[in-house]
Amino acid sequence: MRTIDWVDGAIELIDQTLLPQRVEVRRITELPELIDDIQRLAVRGAPALGVAGAFGVALIAASVQASRGEDELDRDEVRRQAAVLREARPTAVNLSWGVDRALTRLDEGAAAVLDEAIRIRDEDIAACISMGLRGADLTRELAGQDRVSVMTICNTGSLATVERGTALGVIQTLLEQDSLVEALPLETRPLLQGARLTAWELQRMEAPFRLLIDSAGPFLLSRGIADAVFIGADRIAANGDTANKVGSFSLALAARHAGVPFIVVAPESTIDMRTASGADIEIEDRGVDEVAGFGGTRTAPAGIDAVNPAFDVTPHDLITAIVTERRVIRLSRGETLADVSLEALRS
Amino acid sequence: MRTIDWVDGAIELIDQTLLPQRVEVRRITELPELIDDIQRLAVRGAPALGVAGAFGVALIAASVQASRGEDELDRDEVRRQAAVLREARPTAVNLSWGVDRALTRLDEGAAAVLDEAIRIRDEDIAACISMGLRGADLTRELAGQDRVSVMTICNTGSLATVERGTALGVIQTLLEQDSLVEALPLETRPLLQGARLTAWELQRMEAPFRLLIDSAGPFLLSRGIADAVFIGADRIAANGDTANKVGSFSLALAARHAGVPFIVVAPESTIDMRTASGADIEIEDRGVDEVAGFGGTRTAPAGIDAVNPAFDVTPHDLITAIVTERRVIRLSRGETLADVSLEALRS
Repeated sequence: MRTIDWVDGAIELIDQTLLPQRVEVRRITELPELIDDIQRLAVRGAPALGVAGAFGVALIAASVQASRGEDELDRDEVRRQAAVLREARPTAVNLSWGVDRALTRLDEGAAAVLDEAIRIRDEDIAACISMGLRGADLTRELAGQDRVSVMTICNTGSLATVERGTALGVIQTLLEQDSLVEALPLETRPLLQGARLTAWELQRMEAPFRLLIDSAGPFLLSRGIADAVFIGADRIAANGDTANKVGSFSLALAARHAGVPFIVVAPESTIDMRTASGADIEIEDRGVDEVAGFGGTRTAPAGIDAVNPAFDVTPHDLITAIVTERRVIRLSRGETLADVSLEALRS
Repeated sequence: MRTIDWVDGAIELIDQTLLPQRVEVRRITELPELIDDIQRLAVRGAPALGVAGAFGVALIAASVQASRGEDELDRDEVRRQAAVLREARPTAVNLSWGVDRALTRLDEGAAAVLDEAIRIRDEDIAACISMGLRGADLTRELAGQDRVSVMTICNTGSLATVERGTALGVIQTLLEQDSLVEALPLETRPLLQGARLTAWELQRMEAPFRLLIDSAGPFLLSRGIADAVFIGADRIAANGDTANKVGSFSLALAARHAGVPFIVVAPESTIDMRTASGADIEIEDRGVDEVAGFGGTRTAPAGIDAVNPAFDVTPHDLITAIVTERRVIRLSRGETLADVSLEALRS
């Protein structure tokens, strides 16, 4: 099952707000439905949002063309509606990237726009397959053994992409290659993407796994529970510093202390050569409500304040390697992002 | 307000299961009520359980004496009931220690038993005052400044003792000495003692503080948010390795990386010279239920497994100093527990 796809003239996507309690595929034929689903996080994850943006433009173009007859396509109207879609989540750079890339073929007509959107979908699928294979090979090599246990954080699986995922895609590949002893996902407070989404994905792929609270991860690494740690990335700076879900830094420190490889898995579109280092990445604070409870249950006293960074920054010197769809960059051997000629997917 | 006390011939204690929503003082006149309150964690924390055990024996002795008339005290009956109390939480060593210490004066009569229990209570109060003063002085010295921000985990406050607490007692002392910029308590999954109990205590003492999810602590240390980290201890091995709430190890690693002092605050009764090192401390796994939900809300899919260590072990070489009621042992300067002549409170 794909997280998001184009089926018989409409977008179909899994409503992630209902997971893990219920699996419901929503069929979307109108732009306002798509915008609503993006805003309430029914679809989330950087790569998946790029595909949602592109399919959204295909939906707009088909709808505008249908309303004017076969030979007419009001391009200005398509662009006007696409601009509204682009703003559904202004900070999600992949959404506007997907919208803009689909629009590049607007002059060729609605069919060409759909063709480009499907190409983006297929590139995402291919990139995840490639990252999975490279990551699995690297893990066996670094661990020096055929079967490995691996720790991960947040949700970097098919629910964040179209299918297979990034860091969780490596775990799926290890499973398929009979190389996975056990996955160890962290629950990932405050929004519990690990407990809700990653656990659900691991269960569906029938992977052996055990869930951990976030602060147990570093300690259990010190006790030898895992042979490697995989994380995804929100942004990778030019020097290799990596912004990802808060908790990643703590795992990186513990992996170094335990002598375990710490591996970032992300498409090259995540690498931002205009950001020199992690010090230049602004850390969004998401406020007190997420920290003071979960899912409607209040646990902390009323009237308190909190610090709630949405992500953290792992310095490049704690990262063993970055695995992309095109290569493995071994930071621990002195390789740098400047050494490779990046053809960013997003160019 | 004391967490537990002897008032007009009965035990009074704050029911911690109702915090932070409601502050309710329970008045206990019968042994079965006390056993029930201990088992459902209405009273918790190693030092507080020691006092609960001693007051429980005082309650038993008074009740047995009253039933037989002024001059009669059936000591065998007191010992029989005390043995039942001792087993209320078999793994809580402080409970049986408090019971046994109160029983040492049974031959002198019920009044002497109560006198010994009150002495235990007063020693706990004095020990916390002493740890607070030593810890505050040490923090200012190590930070090289008069006002400091400090991070902590779990609940080590008055709710774990009689009043003032251990690590949180240092924070209270800093506050009273106008040396506290801000406290930064971690929420402490899975049972959220930080979000529920420590936040409540900090609010009552009118301390400036902000709550964090556990995995944000290590990252924010790397960004200079705190000048020191304080933790309590469940057990300190002979080499200084310290067992405490899971998440402590992760903070110790991050404190070392950030160059911030990491300080253990605990009474000398916590030091167990018969345990050579942390490798000899058995880690209790508390099972899947606490990990699979949050405050009564199920969050993970059904049928999953988990690893749920109740505490972790911080190796002595990551600990700057251990502060007790009698001294400061500076592990970072090569001082060891073997150098000091311990007069354990529990002797």
